[in-house]
Amino acid sequence: MGIPEKIISGNIRAVARLIRDIDDNIPEAREVLKELYPYTGKAYVVGITGAPGVGKSTLVDQMVYHLRKAKKTVGVLAVDPTSPFSGGAILGDRIRMQRHSMDEGVFIRSMATRGYFGGLTQSTRSAIDVMDAMGKDYIIVETVGVGQDEIDIVRSAHTTIITLVPGMGDDIQALKAGILEVGDIFVINKADREGVDRTVSDIRLMIEMDEKRYKNGWKPPILTAQAVFDEGIKEILDEIKKHRKYLTSSPERKSMFQHEKARNDLVEMIKDRIVSDVLANIIDSGEFEEALQLIVEKKIDPYTACDNIVLKKLKSG
Amino acid sequence: MGIPEKIISGNIRAVARLIRDIDDNIPEAREVLKELYPYTGKAYVVGITGAPGVGKSTLVDQMVYHLRKAKKTVGVLAVDPTSPFSGGAILGDRIRMQRHSMDEGVFIRSMATRGYFGGLTQSTRSAIDVMDAMGKDYIIVETVGVGQDEIDIVRSAHTTIITLVPGMGDDIQALKAGILEVGDIFVINKADREGVDRTVSDIRLMIEMDEKRYKNGWKPPILTAQAVFDEGIKEILDEIKKHRKYLTSSPERKSMFQHEKARNDLVEMIKDRIVSDVLANIIDSGEFEEALQLIVEKKIDPYTACDNIVLKKLKSG
Repeated sequence: MGIPEKIISGNIRAVARLIRDIDDNIPEAREVLKELYPYTGKAYVVGITGAPGVGKSTLVDQMVYHLRKAKKTVGVLAVDPTSPFSGGAILGDRIRMQRHSMDEGVFIRSMATRGYFGGLTQSTRSAIDVMDAMGKDYIIVETVGVGQDEIDIVRSAHTTIITLVPGMGDDIQALKAGILEVGDIFVINKADREGVDRTVSDIRLMIEMDEKRYKNGWKPPILTAQAVFDEGIKEILDEIKKHRKYLTSSPERKSMFQHEKARNDLVEMIKDRIVSDVLANIIDSGEFEEALQLIVEKKIDPYTACDNIVLKKLKSG
Repeated sequence: MGIPEKIISGNIRAVARLIRDIDDNIPEAREVLKELYPYTGKAYVVGITGAPGVGKSTLVDQMVYHLRKAKKTVGVLAVDPTSPFSGGAILGDRIRMQRHSMDEGVFIRSMATRGYFGGLTQSTRSAIDVMDAMGKDYIIVETVGVGQDEIDIVRSAHTTIITLVPGMGDDIQALKAGILEVGDIFVINKADREGVDRTVSDIRLMIEMDEKRYKNGWKPPILTAQAVFDEGIKEILDEIKKHRKYLTSSPERKSMFQHEKARNDLVEMIKDRIVSDVLANIIDSGEFEEALQLIVEKKIDPYTACDNIVLKKLKSG
């Protein structure tokens, strides 16, 4: 049996190795992904993001529990912030969601970014494709953080859940710009804490102010939860179902979503390839080191040095 | 007077316009930056990062207050998460640090990311150059979040402060990989909250485990603060001074730091240029739209489509 067939038949070892190869950016993995592509598109992808400490892992754990009770198979991808120095994943070492570890219907993996060349968005999407081809009904992608990477990652999910906690104060304003716009469902976790009503009304206000986006469309619900006590989880899953129905109920909307997703995916993939191929090539060149020396000695400014290098590369490349 | 002369003489209007042009990616700004470059390298750059809700803004506000009392001029750059849809900054609308708004020794600006083409890291570094050329003694760069962007941004600061709050639980593990490694000083803000001792000891443990990095070098102090009550701020500024002394006390270390910084800056700048020049060109091409259509119809997989487009571009480019 070839690797693609093993993946499709759900061979855990083959899936784990392929995802690791994707994370390590091993070129052969691309060939397998090409063969798997026709088998993708069946899984429903849920993205969960939010700042550290809001309780995303517990939320995911409970969601997995309820999905399994409903006989759905689940893949979980935990996307970690990078180590720019050591390049390693850290959540991989952490024993995540132990109670599901013996359940064959659940497959859990961590992804990590890789220094300069980025690529986390792309490798996460590829890992989603693998879990999709493997036959998982639901794929939950959990990202830690509120940066551009996280937005890019959750953008390709069918349903995106933004997790917050009460009492974020002024910083909720900052969230507005990036994360709030990609949220399909908002969950205020740790809802026993002070300030929950304020947080709910702050988010409601932001959603209502952004009429353009929500008119004639999906108006994101704001739910409260206490994930550690399994409170509010069923309601979250109900809203995911509603959102899924919303996305698929009209053929136009379904096609628009697919098109948008394919566009984002292709742009990210091309960006990654350009950066990794061209940038690696430039950094390894003697020209780069020479320019660097001149910059340090203040004999040239970095803007001019960059112009020279890039123009030359794009002409000769 | 030309624009570079206006910047150097501290003309607020000229500085504000140039930073806006940088944020809007206007090509002419690059020419001004080239001319300003010889006037940079005097300011001391402090980066502050941390998840939303940890009180970074208040901390920065207090630091500005103390630096001003010591007769230092200060530039503040607040870097916001992106809006992938509207592309707009949001903190710009927010009235930040009002009590310093009438003080000519303080210059405050916000930056925002710009969709697909990234560039936040690059434009932040350029804005730092502008404030540096303008003659500010200290430049404080505040970023919201814990993603790759934030790490890239704070990497070019002389001193990087990581702000946390007590009781982050499991997520502190996730921070380890990315942010903890770039921290020169750790501040546990809101130190009146439960769990402060635990958080301090968790971070201490992580620092001590990472011997390789800290042996014979700077061992990051862990400070507690209550920024709203101006508690612990002086201690933070003392540690910044100590770290500054550490960086400059040995000629080898100083040169290594400069080289490292110049390398990071140049890599980011080249990456940005490649992505914005090549990617924009590809997305605007009919070829991209054709490939997209074929992907949606499942007649081609995105990996093969990407290969075709990138190989062709780099050959003909």
